Amino acid sequence: MAGSWVDIPADSDFSLANIPFGIVSTPNDPSSHAAVAIGTSILDLKVLFTSSASPFLTTQIIPSLAGHEHVFAQPTLNAFAELGRAVHREVRAGIQALIAADTSHPDVLRDNAPLREAALLPQRAVTLHLPMSIGDYTDFYAGYHHAYAVGVMFRGPANALQPNYTHLPVGYHGRASSIVVSGTPVRRPVGQILLDEKPVTAPSRRLDFELELGCFISRANAQGTSVAVDEADKEFIFGYVLLNDWSARDIQAWEYVPLGPFNSKNFASTISPWVVLADALEPFRAAAIPNSTPLQGYLQEPKDKKSVFDIKLEVDLTTPESDTTTVCRTSSRNLLWSFPQMIAHHTLGGCPLRAGDLLGSGTISGPDASERGSLLELSEGGKKDVLLYGMDARTFLKDGDTVTLRGYCADGNGARVGFGECRGRIYGPSSN
Amino acid sequence: MAGSWVDIPADSDFSLANIPFGIVSTPNDPSSHAAVAIGTSILDLKVLFTSSASPFLTTQIIPSLAGHEHVFAQPTLNAFAELGRAVHREVRAGIQALIAADTSHPDVLRDNAPLREAALLPQRAVTLHLPMSIGDYTDFYAGYHHAYAVGVMFRGPANALQPNYTHLPVGYHGRASSIVVSGTPVRRPVGQILLDEKPVTAPSRRLDFELELGCFISRANAQGTSVAVDEADKEFIFGYVLLNDWSARDIQAWEYVPLGPFNSKNFASTISPWVVLADALEPFRAAAIPNSTPLQGYLQEPKDKKSVFDIKLEVDLTTPESDTTTVCRTSSRNLLWSFPQMIAHHTLGGCPLRAGDLLGSGTISGPDASERGSLLELSEGGKKDVLLYGMDARTFLKDGDTVTLRGYCADGNGARVGFGECRGRIYGPSSN
Repeated sequence: MAGSWVDIPADSDFSLANIPFGIVSTPNDPSSHAAVAIGTSILDLKVLFTSSASPFLTTQIIPSLAGHEHVFAQPTLNAFAELGRAVHREVRAGIQALIAADTSHPDVLRDNAPLREAALLPQRAVTLHLPMSIGDYTDFYAGYHHAYAVGVMFRGPANALQPNYTHLPVGYHGRASSIVVSGTPVRRPVGQILLDEKPVTAPSRRLDFELELGCFISRANAQGTSVAVDEADKEFIFGYVLLNDWSARDIQAWEYVPLGPFNSKNFASTISPWVVLADALEPFRAAAIPNSTPLQGYLQEPKDKKSVFDIKLEVDLTTPESDTTTVCRTSSRNLLWSFPQMIAHHTLGGCPLRAGDLLGSGTISGPDASERGSLLELSEGGKKDVLLYGMDARTFLKDGDTVTLRGYCADGNGARVGFGECRGRIYGPSSN
Repeated sequence: MAGSWVDIPADSDFSLANIPFGIVSTPNDPSSHAAVAIGTSILDLKVLFTSSASPFLTTQIIPSLAGHEHVFAQPTLNAFAELGRAVHREVRAGIQALIAADTSHPDVLRDNAPLREAALLPQRAVTLHLPMSIGDYTDFYAGYHHAYAVGVMFRGPANALQPNYTHLPVGYHGRASSIVVSGTPVRRPVGQILLDEKPVTAPSRRLDFELELGCFISRANAQGTSVAVDEADKEFIFGYVLLNDWSARDIQAWEYVPLGPFNSKNFASTISPWVVLADALEPFRAAAIPNSTPLQGYLQEPKDKKSVFDIKLEVDLTTPESDTTTVCRTSSRNLLWSFPQMIAHHTLGGCPLRAGDLLGSGTISGPDASERGSLLELSEGGKKDVLLYGMDARTFLKDGDTVTLRGYCADGNGARVGFGECRGRIYGPSSN
């Protein structure tokens, strides 16, 4: 792909090949509204589509948006998501055409100084907000190596995976209200934990991160109807974010029988602010982990289908002393189940999805020791120090620690498609 | 309490002592808006508070509502709930004063024929909608006798209750999008179930109801903060509904390890349409089931506190042949945990609640055989026929069956406070 007249550093997650969507407020407009990220800038879509250039754009370049320009003035991307994948595709392509170095429409933005100055702002000048209004949040458990490693820890290698694990994408309902955007501080939760086999009420001593990929739903299915796996892939996915599903392991161990995790998860989950459209990830498809279990019909995807993505993922842990260590490097291909399979399973019994719903992949770990997507795995259940720069070490997170997830795809020709940061800093319950 | 000039049958759930709030659309106004139920009528609050009587009402009778009258024109009760318990109390008392037989303000409504005819409509003429926009739904497991009976079935009497059960109100996150209002047909879910130890995809063969009480939250706590148990009781509860948490037992048995129920629950949960205000239930307080386990401080309520309610509950099963059998009669006092305790636990780690969130009590069963709030218990795990009128019998629900939950409190002096019906009819997946 050719370059852009907008300055895009070579290592930027937000190359011309990406064009992720987010919600911003700006010095000139404190109400939340839509933008895309380009290099170190944002292009303000509310400004663009309320400007005098808008009629040209919606007649000549992005006709499918005509009559829907107001979606970019809204405080979430839900209405844009509901317009459907064909519109997302055309809007992304239209923006790429506008900002390409060899744009055929230089007068619209590149050579239109007043509009350019109003619409193109440095990212550091804007505030990023949650991109979607999240009606329901579901967290799956599709990271095979994570499920296996944690299973070995609790039940030994012979019974590491539950009998259902390779037959269906195991998942549970999470807490939508607890989802925060990157940068929001995260309070260490107080909870009931077992200490010397007695329950006490105390701040969690085993606070952890979980490296996940999040998937935003673009459209609703009617209650009582199911979504086929290929229909899910083509029509139900808006885009993707990074997701840190913070977990308090000691609270979880005591509370989770028999109904699953609750307070160990519902204090906060952090997502990256920019939604990378499904189309932007298409060139980076990869095969999921092979599953030798014969699948039920509703979960079957074509043989050799590349049903997941090869997103390079990493987790940085920054200490209160500002020393940063990359504690995990892996890929999002380490999933046993694809998001279309998760959607097909989720709706099998007629559960209604809605635009803005968030699905989590479950913790993504690779097969090697350096690819573990949680401290629970890295510290082998808290038994082993995870060594950090600065002579420091962790089993679980300390107050003042910052966890930053990063993820990107690259084709070697400058088409880098990344997520930016998914970052959160832990503060102690005493400081509140 | 004296009578009303509105006709209220003696056995009505909606006596002058009740005044529950709901969302209706009417022949004259198809947009959803607020009303209260009185006998067999509804009083349209949008009509009332946009009428010429409104200024008198908000200066003389309900001053705390002044400036907020628009909340009754909204399609949910969320904004009204957020006004706080003092306002709910004053509005309820003001409506009671208006419709009392000996009202001091006869000119406002009783003798104002045009307004009376516009605002007071037969219930059968209006359509009832979901009363709240439900951000998150949490289902607890506080029905002690249910938890014990089901535990015996799966693990024997020695291990019936998990070690955490008497230490904390066990709960899990449910699916907010799946909640429907009474009367909505419920499709039998298809799911993965084990048949002869092999998974198949098929309609659930073990479809069940669950008799629960639902509690709507009236206000938000900031993320990272907790709500004390007494504060929860005084300020965080808007009101109550009946809740049928439909459950597919065969789907549940296969899917629920290790993260809890998912597709077995997320196809539908039905609530009654009228929200009975917390204040209306105050006279019917009762002691919860005694818990001999020493409680953590954040769960402690004053000794001898009547922390739950003695609501008479029943479950009617109506066959496709229209024969109705009451299969369960019990009381909502059969809870080990109160809603304030559930709220204190839910927020212990800082989970943010929002106005409109729904909490379920968990299935309510009494100690006796006639008090079992699910077919799983009534049929002893599907082993025993539950006999019905008309020479019929069930272990689990058949297509065409209708389940109706009812609940009311009565003081013997006409102060009957009830919920109306929470009703749903099962239809087969083949008919869709």
